[in-house]
Amino acid sequence: MFWSKTLIPTLKEIPQEAESVSHQLLLRAGLMRMLMAGVYSYLPLGLKVLNNIEKIVRQEMEAAGASELLLAALQPRELWMRSGRDTDMGEVMVRFTDRRGRNVCLGPTHEEVITDLVAGYISSYKQLPLVLYQIQTKFRDEVRPRFGPVRACEFIMKDAYSFDKDEEGLNKNYKAMHKAYNNIFKRCGLNFLTVAADPGVMGGSLSHEFMVPAESGEDVVLSCPECKFTQAYKEGGGENCSKCSTRLEKINTIEVGHIFQLGTKYSSSLGANFLDAKGTLKPVIMGCYGIGVSRLISAIIEQNSDKDGIIWPGEIAPYSVIILPLDITDKKIKKAAFSVYKELLKEKIEVLFDDRDERAGVKFKDADLLGIPLQVVVGRESLKNNKLELKLRKNHKKSIKAKSAILKEIKRYING
Amino acid sequence: MFWSKTLIPTLKEIPQEAESVSHQLLLRAGLMRMLMAGVYSYLPLGLKVLNNIEKIVRQEMEAAGASELLLAALQPRELWMRSGRDTDMGEVMVRFTDRRGRNVCLGPTHEEVITDLVAGYISSYKQLPLVLYQIQTKFRDEVRPRFGPVRACEFIMKDAYSFDKDEEGLNKNYKAMHKAYNNIFKRCGLNFLTVAADPGVMGGSLSHEFMVPAESGEDVVLSCPECKFTQAYKEGGGENCSKCSTRLEKINTIEVGHIFQLGTKYSSSLGANFLDAKGTLKPVIMGCYGIGVSRLISAIIEQNSDKDGIIWPGEIAPYSVIILPLDITDKKIKKAAFSVYKELLKEKIEVLFDDRDERAGVKFKDADLLGIPLQVVVGRESLKNNKLELKLRKNHKKSIKAKSAILKEIKRYING
Repeated sequence: MFWSKTLIPTLKEIPQEAESVSHQLLLRAGLMRMLMAGVYSYLPLGLKVLNNIEKIVRQEMEAAGASELLLAALQPRELWMRSGRDTDMGEVMVRFTDRRGRNVCLGPTHEEVITDLVAGYISSYKQLPLVLYQIQTKFRDEVRPRFGPVRACEFIMKDAYSFDKDEEGLNKNYKAMHKAYNNIFKRCGLNFLTVAADPGVMGGSLSHEFMVPAESGEDVVLSCPECKFTQAYKEGGGENCSKCSTRLEKINTIEVGHIFQLGTKYSSSLGANFLDAKGTLKPVIMGCYGIGVSRLISAIIEQNSDKDGIIWPGEIAPYSVIILPLDITDKKIKKAAFSVYKELLKEKIEVLFDDRDERAGVKFKDADLLGIPLQVVVGRESLKNNKLELKLRKNHKKSIKAKSAILKEIKRYING
Repeated sequence: MFWSKTLIPTLKEIPQEAESVSHQLLLRAGLMRMLMAGVYSYLPLGLKVLNNIEKIVRQEMEAAGASELLLAALQPRELWMRSGRDTDMGEVMVRFTDRRGRNVCLGPTHEEVITDLVAGYISSYKQLPLVLYQIQTKFRDEVRPRFGPVRACEFIMKDAYSFDKDEEGLNKNYKAMHKAYNNIFKRCGLNFLTVAADPGVMGGSLSHEFMVPAESGEDVVLSCPECKFTQAYKEGGGENCSKCSTRLEKINTIEVGHIFQLGTKYSSSLGANFLDAKGTLKPVIMGCYGIGVSRLISAIIEQNSDKDGIIWPGEIAPYSVIILPLDITDKKIKKAAFSVYKELLKEKIEVLFDDRDERAGVKFKDADLLGIPLQVVVGRESLKNNKLELKLRKNHKKSIKAKSAILKEIKRYING
């Protein structure tokens, strides 16, 4: 991709509205723009990052045996009345009456809709287990949207739902999802904690949260420095470890995932029943499993950046390589840069070509800000000796070599 | 994918609510389910079809030089007041006031938002042309939603926007988009017409619609049997061809795409200006280009089906091959079927394995209904001679051969 053909509006100054490091960087690196508080546009680079995260999520969900579908944002409020959550959700749920007088809401989550869908399909234990998931846009009327996509009014979630005939099946699916979540967050380049949590408005018994330590995190996790046991912070809860009585330490975190053993809360109220092997009618046993997909962008940046900008983990980077011709008006430089570009495309490597007529300093600064892992610098000096420069974003290590050697090094780096 | 691990709720009966052939088939083949009138859930097969269409759209958009981004569904009404369309849109636009008292709407389209975004970025003619697109969910409060995804309250659109410094640039982008649209609809397996149309509420001068002839189509196109000239039907318009005076024929069509030369309607009202080479401030010249992505599913089915069900074009099919073990309780059959399955997966061919304990008749009927291009039938009789049966969905042609020959034939068929 040529820089001039896409939209990467980098900013030199820190935008006033941005309170956290990740929020500042995703605006400065031209990944996103605010449309109104809590509502963001994903610009081309931000969308590429989002797609890379979604790809990882899909691969790990499919590996865990889940099948993808796509539910609607518009939902009939009647379903929420049946589950009892129309009241529980309070003002966070956007409700309106449409032209035909129907009571409609914008889905903040989809337990009701998926349970109703599966209720019309499942009749026998032979059709179970079933695990379905979607990556879809949710809406919440947040009073205080903050930190960009971390607490937004419109955001993207992965929500999965398991349907089982017994507790054993639920436990199995819960474990498979737990494992898939570990894989996903590792591949996203994150350090994270898993803590037992309160199911809250979701209902059910067992629940675990996946927490990413970050300065701007709004959730607090208590961690025991002695036995490493972690638990969610609760107002009025104990200050000492429930396992070994050591004084607990607080950690600020961003919640990126939450898994729940729901039991029969939704299947009972919405009539998702099946006949077991003995012919007895029973409610399906459910679990639900959420990941804040758009929020992950922020969590990843919080843990993968330095004073100069973002340092994308390999699988998340919007491009693997950025090519920096230091003077685009110099024909030799342009030609050499373009020849590297073409060879990388031939190898199916994602590459951004900075074809702007800008000073070298601007290009270096922007390249560091964008955080693309590999920078190929094409300048007059090295070209004199028929050489190019390869720079690693994460540690600024440079190597000056002939084109063929640079290409080899890039391929070795990308393929691990 | 195993049938038992996903959700394909086929229906024997024609659902009462479905008025058109495509609406009936997409419910019967388990592609979609209605949540409420005008709002649909995409089940796994339907989502795969949607993804295949989106892949084609993305490839042709990128080839036409467009760069992808993703805008929000929530929009500030203030932008619509500035463009003057808050009134024009009437009741079709969903409006509500959020908890903070903000006037919000659900985007029925995104001219205002993208113009506002680009206004904050473009300052010089050097940054033009720029073409941006997204594939995103739109909302319309339809009084009479009909025909499933054809006229829905929540639907998926591809909307592209071009930004140019002069008319010449607009014409060039308009032509490039026109060509991309031809490619997209051809790859979708559609016969279609292009007609000059009335820009309507979009504004601007020139506009073309892409129309798919279909019995259930709600748009009427007038076509001249003599000179093949086509034009959109207008109440009170002439009955004879404006080119050769022959009496026009009416055709029912589904509108699947619409492209517009917008001019400066939005850039003027929303302040998207640039300095030209002489330093004069001018409004950017815009075009916009829409495709009804979810609606395309219906249009494709309307033109690609027979009395038994859907006949998917190769690039659109949710799977390329369906394997039908006629008796899954027979170990030999199961083993032979599974071995074909594994070999096809190894070749990265998308394959569905009907592992249900159902009668052969049910499997045959469902396979024809689903419309997957190739059926591999594994039955007792042919297995006796170490053979399998390959059936083409479109013409029911059969060939009975050894496994290796069947695999070769499948690969030849898929690779054209």
